[in-house]
Amino acid sequence: MKHLLLAAAAASLALPVIAQEPAPIPSPGEIAATAPASDWIAIAPSDLLVIDLEPDTKGKARRVVIQLMPAPFSQGWIANIRKLAAAHWWDGTSINRVQDNYVVQWGDATEKKALPEGLATVAESEYVTPLREDLQAALRAKMKSEEAELLAAFRQPADKKIPAIKRAIPRDPFAEETIAFRGWPVAIDRQDQSGWPVHCYGMVGVGRNLSPDTGSGAELYTVIGHAPRHLDQNIALVGRVVSGIEHLSSLPRGTGTLGFYETEAERVPIASIRIASELPAADQPRFEYLSTESDSFARYADARANRRDPFFIKPAGGADICNIPVPVRAVAK
Amino acid sequence: MKHLLLAAAAASLALPVIAQEPAPIPSPGEIAATAPASDWIAIAPSDLLVIDLEPDTKGKARRVVIQLMPAPFSQGWIANIRKLAAAHWWDGTSINRVQDNYVVQWGDATEKKALPEGLATVAESEYVTPLREDLQAALRAKMKSEEAELLAAFRQPADKKIPAIKRAIPRDPFAEETIAFRGWPVAIDRQDQSGWPVHCYGMVGVGRNLSPDTGSGAELYTVIGHAPRHLDQNIALVGRVVSGIEHLSSLPRGTGTLGFYETEAERVPIASIRIASELPAADQPRFEYLSTESDSFARYADARANRRDPFFIKPAGGADICNIPVPVRAVAK
Repeated sequence: MKHLLLAAAAASLALPVIAQEPAPIPSPGEIAATAPASDWIAIAPSDLLVIDLEPDTKGKARRVVIQLMPAPFSQGWIANIRKLAAAHWWDGTSINRVQDNYVVQWGDATEKKALPEGLATVAESEYVTPLREDLQAALRAKMKSEEAELLAAFRQPADKKIPAIKRAIPRDPFAEETIAFRGWPVAIDRQDQSGWPVHCYGMVGVGRNLSPDTGSGAELYTVIGHAPRHLDQNIALVGRVVSGIEHLSSLPRGTGTLGFYETEAERVPIASIRIASELPAADQPRFEYLSTESDSFARYADARANRRDPFFIKPAGGADICNIPVPVRAVAK
Repeated sequence: MKHLLLAAAAASLALPVIAQEPAPIPSPGEIAATAPASDWIAIAPSDLLVIDLEPDTKGKARRVVIQLMPAPFSQGWIANIRKLAAAHWWDGTSINRVQDNYVVQWGDATEKKALPEGLATVAESEYVTPLREDLQAALRAKMKSEEAELLAAFRQPADKKIPAIKRAIPRDPFAEETIAFRGWPVAIDRQDQSGWPVHCYGMVGVGRNLSPDTGSGAELYTVIGHAPRHLDQNIALVGRVVSGIEHLSSLPRGTGTLGFYETEAERVPIASIRIASELPAADQPRFEYLSTESDSFARYADARANRRDPFFIKPAGGADICNIPVPVRAVAK
């Protein structure tokens, strides 16, 4: 029975979702695992950033794979990141900061390494994106589905009404609305007519100094704790870790201010960072994500917000967007 | 300038909050650090559970300190935990599971060790607590303060209205209301007239098998990722890690199902678990927390929800309860 202990929510970010014993009501992981192949979208190798750390003390390889975000988000910084990777700029740099329940950060610890020519200086206004038509359409679709759900809930027996009604009311603590859009968690403000990606576990962002600096993309971090959503709109997000985050999240915490490592010996050397399409074909990682526009994802999200699999005795009737991670899985070669 | 990178939100759970360069508008950490001594409440040694792991490979001590919750929460399980500690039951057991972005779990890997006599079987109904008068009073105080804030916001210039108004509207995705109550994050449902502690980073809960099992308290876990709030009301919470969580969160992730370690060699041996009052006086850890009923905490929570310290260009205008961790600090002996 040991493996049933806390059998809830095995849907770890970026791990292949494994179907377990058949249950009368499928778990979120089971819904994703049994989704038709057509609901999964391949991630182009040109959108994958591959970090190879130096092997660990036992000689074991440590690879971290990041999916870069698509337009309309953060494309200025992402273009810089592509240039930095093409210049092999990160090779020989290191992981310099591990702050518990917050971030792991990497880049040039000396702060003296010259950057490649031609990096853009991106404006702070790019932290958010205008609410263009496709984002608006996604938001309308979400609200229509919530409206339908709300009406359906009123027609339910009284004891079933509350969770569905609760869930249909937007209740994000940080934004007017949140949606899953083309594979990404996005917050929306209709008054400002803007949207922005949000700081969930595993999201990757661009370190910066004080405003008006926005960072070049040479200094990157990933979230390894509770979603620090107060950073949303204050710093650029450029992607998320889809594989190997354990090589970052299980590193020793730094003992300096803000979790910076205090000695060179503590820093974890980065062997190389490449866009996957630059790697030999046989060495290119392949991943796919569950289309957030698919029926499978809608069922998955509903199941995350209303756990009905055997472990649970009371479904929550809601979830924050970071508690509905988009399923990503490795593709067998 | 390196140390300014991502200078945000250094208020790590359980780390002493360090005042940095004076800023025109104090950060949440600065507000806590400069709170009057009378706003800090000492944690009784009898409410601290001290886990001493075997030293790490370099011979370094690894101590984790957990604060147990006060009434009216989970007292049946907590009484069991006191009995297990008094019987030295955990000595020689181990950490058996580390699942990324989820939990670290410890107890008897063999599942064969006899439990001490006299442990209670606690009912599922104890996952929540009736909304007794002190909880109701705390909720009324919170709502009154939000009402005042909402009115004040309407009298502000238009550009300052939105964040304050947004924050004053309850927007927890999982519960009708959340409050910080006597040092703890608590969710409240007025229709059900009930409250319950919530699964924030570092909270400690009781592993269980399928319902109607509720766990004895012998198998414990702590949260090391984004708040798994779907577990609220489905499993007992008994405390939180106030020191040393890095000894758990930085352990290698288990490669078995749900992050269980697959071999004995991977498990991390527990030397002893004691209630602090059983330790020699010189070895008793001493901690205090910022009273959640103090003005200092109100200012700290407001600053967490509306970051105005120099790093930030746009305050969020809100925060979820797990993004407002209660400050806890070690007391110098």
